[in-house]
Amino acid sequence: MEQVTVELGGRSYPICIGKQLIGQADLILPYIRGRQVCIVTNTTIAPLFLEPLQASLSSLDKVDTVVLPDGEAHKNLDTLNSIFDTLLEKQHNRSTTIVALGGGVVGDMAGFAAACYQRGVGFVQVPTTLLAQVDSSVGGKTAVNHPLGKNMIGAFYQPSLVLADTDSLRSLPDRELAAGLAEVIKYGLIADAPFFDWLEQNLEALLARDEAGLTYAIARSCHNKARVVAADEREGGLRAILNLGHTFGHAIETVQGYGNWLHGEAVAVGTIMALDLSARLGWIDPSVGARTRSMFERAGLPVRSPEGMSTVRYLEVMAVDKKNLDGQLRLVLLRALGGATIESGVPRTQVEETLRACGAV
Amino acid sequence: MEQVTVELGGRSYPICIGKQLIGQADLILPYIRGRQVCIVTNTTIAPLFLEPLQASLSSLDKVDTVVLPDGEAHKNLDTLNSIFDTLLEKQHNRSTTIVALGGGVVGDMAGFAAACYQRGVGFVQVPTTLLAQVDSSVGGKTAVNHPLGKNMIGAFYQPSLVLADTDSLRSLPDRELAAGLAEVIKYGLIADAPFFDWLEQNLEALLARDEAGLTYAIARSCHNKARVVAADEREGGLRAILNLGHTFGHAIETVQGYGNWLHGEAVAVGTIMALDLSARLGWIDPSVGARTRSMFERAGLPVRSPEGMSTVRYLEVMAVDKKNLDGQLRLVLLRALGGATIESGVPRTQVEETLRACGAV
Repeated sequence: MEQVTVELGGRSYPICIGKQLIGQADLILPYIRGRQVCIVTNTTIAPLFLEPLQASLSSLDKVDTVVLPDGEAHKNLDTLNSIFDTLLEKQHNRSTTIVALGGGVVGDMAGFAAACYQRGVGFVQVPTTLLAQVDSSVGGKTAVNHPLGKNMIGAFYQPSLVLADTDSLRSLPDRELAAGLAEVIKYGLIADAPFFDWLEQNLEALLARDEAGLTYAIARSCHNKARVVAADEREGGLRAILNLGHTFGHAIETVQGYGNWLHGEAVAVGTIMALDLSARLGWIDPSVGARTRSMFERAGLPVRSPEGMSTVRYLEVMAVDKKNLDGQLRLVLLRALGGATIESGVPRTQVEETLRACGAV
Repeated sequence: MEQVTVELGGRSYPICIGKQLIGQADLILPYIRGRQVCIVTNTTIAPLFLEPLQASLSSLDKVDTVVLPDGEAHKNLDTLNSIFDTLLEKQHNRSTTIVALGGGVVGDMAGFAAACYQRGVGFVQVPTTLLAQVDSSVGGKTAVNHPLGKNMIGAFYQPSLVLADTDSLRSLPDRELAAGLAEVIKYGLIADAPFFDWLEQNLEALLARDEAGLTYAIARSCHNKARVVAADEREGGLRAILNLGHTFGHAIETVQGYGNWLHGEAVAVGTIMALDLSARLGWIDPSVGARTRSMFERAGLPVRSPEGMSTVRYLEVMAVDKKNLDGQLRLVLLRALGGATIESGVPRTQVEETLRACGAV
């Protein structure tokens, strides 16, 4: 088992990565705050991992479960409220702990529920997708979507433990594994050039779900993320670099409807756009974009804008991105392979050129 | 103008109390984070104070307003979402500031919206009721109700400024003034016996809206609250003493339906119950209860349980109170006039006796 610590003073917490972690009572029980637990999961994950997780918690007084419908389309205030319904019907009090068992959508909603229920209860993340293991379960960002924007309603709320069981990746659909790899490759691009090189050489092993390779890639991704989060928990500045490709990507998700494109797929296209723009501004060599594009293609990820989406629509949706300040579009771009920057005031014409070069109309 | 500071390190903030504060641009502008503001108010308050508040903010780039329906019945996730709708439609970004103009319901919802919108934006409180000026606007508790419990969904989120304009109390209905006085008297009971004596002697002046008297009573109430909040911001322990009478009171509000009883009215009855129980346990002299009851009666506040509400129903609703830990009912009681305590394990029979003595069936 690998372990990475997110250093946040009194709120520091471990990320445990390895096989057969779900089901180990000794691993999870020390991080349960009181004697009550509510597991939040979804219809896809429950049949696979709910039973061993429940078993590991069975010494507690109360273990309830909320099974949400699967998918980003359900990541909204109504679904969130169904978690509150169960917590109140089952009389969970302020000493309860919410355990998220699932991918990013489950983790984001369960985490936001934990942040808000009775103004904050215990929270543990058991991410079961690669994307959740390397990104969304780490760092304390929780949220639900609004019809007018992704992750617009949420909180910074850190878990007390992240349990990333690599066994859960065995049953993960290929498409979701690839979507997770888009975020893994992102860490190489923004902060860790040697890791980027390693990924380029080991991509096929990861796609074949080589366990040692996945454990290494997850741990190194989490290490990179933890370092950035520790330096800037609430995204005052640096943390925004984690959003490489996300401003373009969120626009794709918003316009295509949540759930039609996977988050990692939209981020892949967004990353290609960010690299194109960085090269267009003369900051990086076009080969960085070409290498990334080739890796995405090997992983079966999309690398072009969805058909028919216009530059005007992109810019409209990107205008409400959370990273923007006082009306200025802010983008995460690269100054070098392994070195990201947050830029305001990139000329609109160059953004439009990039969008068109990547397939927008 | 009186000023009280809530001491929370880097998040400390002033409470300004006095006349004609709404409308003073110099007072509010230094506490607006960016160049955008969204005022959240309600249909009752908007015609009275919205215009001067808007005028004081008119040098900013964007001043939008959300006018909510008035009343506790609307303090729910749906109304909260209407605030997010406006923020997103009007393209407010992460540097926006939400200004709450109204009573406790407006402040609680606007504050929770500020805590959640894009994971946290600026927040200023302009409370216009006595209850909000002495209690709900101070200390950072924000929330909405759930059909199964009051304030069950919320966050701790501190404002950067509280502006308590005593002019707003001139138009306040008598019933709401009295409801606010119930919380003012509470501070005397839990932490400030000399203030309790002062209130006993000056109650008629306050009911007649004597301005100097009200300014003094608000400032002293805020001073008491600020001291408790500074010592225990997130209600790990001590802060719960601010909830004297609230566990019983919340049960009344829940069963009667939010909005039929004013919060302060329910707290008044709950306080009488807490004092009865404290005396029944032999901790305080019955005269404390008698003096408080007499003050409540002079103010026109209720002092008995709503008709027909059963002890069983009280205990059922109180079982989900946020202060409870691991199934134990926890109550705020008095050990002396001016000295509160938080107690678990009070015998159920004595709680029932108190409930019946105060009119429950």
